[in-house]
Amino acid sequence: MVGVPGVGKTSLCREASSSTGYRYVNYGELMLEIAKQHEVASTLQGIFELPLDSQYRIWREAASRIADQNDVLVDLHGLDKSREGYLISLPLETLKPEIIILVESSYDTIIKRRINDRERARPVEDWKTLKQEMELLRTSMAVCSTLLNSYFRILDNDEFEESANTLKYYL
Amino acid sequence: MVGVPGVGKTSLCREASSSTGYRYVNYGELMLEIAKQHEVASTLQGIFELPLDSQYRIWREAASRIADQNDVLVDLHGLDKSREGYLISLPLETLKPEIIILVESSYDTIIKRRINDRERARPVEDWKTLKQEMELLRTSMAVCSTLLNSYFRILDNDEFEESANTLKYYL
Amino acid sequence: MVGVPGVGKTSLCREASSSTGYRYVNYGELMLEIAKQHEVASTLQGIFELPLDSQYRIWREAASRIADQNDVLVDLHGLDKSREGYLISLPLETLKPEIIILVESSYDTIIKRRINDRERARPVEDWKTLKQEMELLRTSMAVCSTLLNSYFRILDNDEFEESANTLKYYL
Repeated sequence: MVGVPGVGKTSLCREASSSTGYRYVNYGELMLEIAKQHEVASTLQGIFELPLDSQYRIWREAASRIADQNDVLVDLHGLDKSREGYLISLPLETLKPEIIILVESSYDTIIKRRINDRERARPVEDWKTLKQEMELLRTSMAVCSTLLNSYFRILDNDEFEESANTLKYYL
Repeated sequence: MVGVPGVGKTSLCREASSSTGYRYVNYGELMLEIAKQHEVASTLQGIFELPLDSQYRIWREAASRIADQNDVLVDLHGLDKSREGYLISLPLETLKPEIIILVESSYDTIIKRRINDRERARPVEDWKTLKQEMELLRTSMAVCSTLLNSYFRILDNDEFEESANTLKYYL
Repeated sequence: MVGVPGVGKTSLCREASSSTGYRYVNYGELMLEIAKQHEVASTLQGIFELPLDSQYRIWREAASRIADQNDVLVDLHGLDKSREGYLISLPLETLKPEIIILVESSYDTIIKRRINDRERARPVEDWKTLKQEMELLRTSMAVCSTLLNSYFRILDNDEFEESANTLKYYL
């Protein structure tokens, strides 16, 4: 499951996981768990401040751990955004998802969610930047599904109950 | 030649094939021919009801047969749509087309053609779903042309005569 | 740095190169230099009139020469357009850019620049064709960044000074 921050991906994943046999894995949380085990960082922010090759090792280890499991629902952004630009965050060489589900929602809804979700300190972007990010994520995920020969679905998350039911139907 | 159902791809292919040296091959019909030879199915619907690995074997055999030929105009959707999601249907590992021609048309024209073409029982979708399907097909074909280093053309099929002439000019 | 003809890519590259440590390389000019060394053509037009495999050899040699260098800013279209269709012109097998920067601008601005730049005899296309070309370039570059694991940035070139400053900030 991929989608931009604020699209409501995590809530949908948790709901779908709790009512199906799929185990929920949050990619960021798994990276944090690994960083703590190696005693290199104790927060997500701490990971992002590590040298790039250390971050990369943690990211790869997370991918390997997920690849060893079946019936797992992985929650990740799909496309990271930094000062240097966008970078694909789906570990193409390690993970081969059966289905890539891209969660989308209206720009307004996403921006509202980001404003309200102050706890997670999400970036509040203008409409144009968000549009660009969502278009690139869609393109990138279409690329990944072609390369990996995975099914590709787009799930509109306009109304939570309905989207959660649609998601359970796919799984 | 790729395009969504109802875009008028088959008529264009047949017309262009009859007036050029290119032999017309319909991917679905070739799969049916193979299924009949192996006595596993006698209709396209029958193929879709086979186990996935059997369908895959037929699909791969069709690709191999086409790969052995020159000057051939292959007619296929490019992107299949099932309950699980979209799945690329261009056999990337076997076929290396010189040119990928994506046929497009207005949403209205496509929906009208689908409604009128009851014989082939085509799905009549709403505007939004069709738009998504066409955008994904375009992205997927751009991916394939990049991976295969094939030329990529978009052919608007708004007026048949004109589109057929444009197509003959490409070939 | 990639972008359609007339987007203002070359001016941005030269400006950014002159004020940073990056050496500017124009892909077309490098191909011309190579063609002259091999005495096969003396103008860019002359290169395009060579047999395709000769053009390809020059294109590959240019890629190899660039690949041997560090801190280089390469200026190329990214997507070539010919009678046969669009064809990716980023040498994926040879070059692995750290960042792919796609320069974009409004359709009007690009068309005006092409009209005014008679010296370079640029194609003046209608709005619809330009839109298609820019969308395909964006998709193709997203594909390349996914395949190469390169960062991907989109740089709006609406106001030169501002865009040049943004570019220097990335580098």
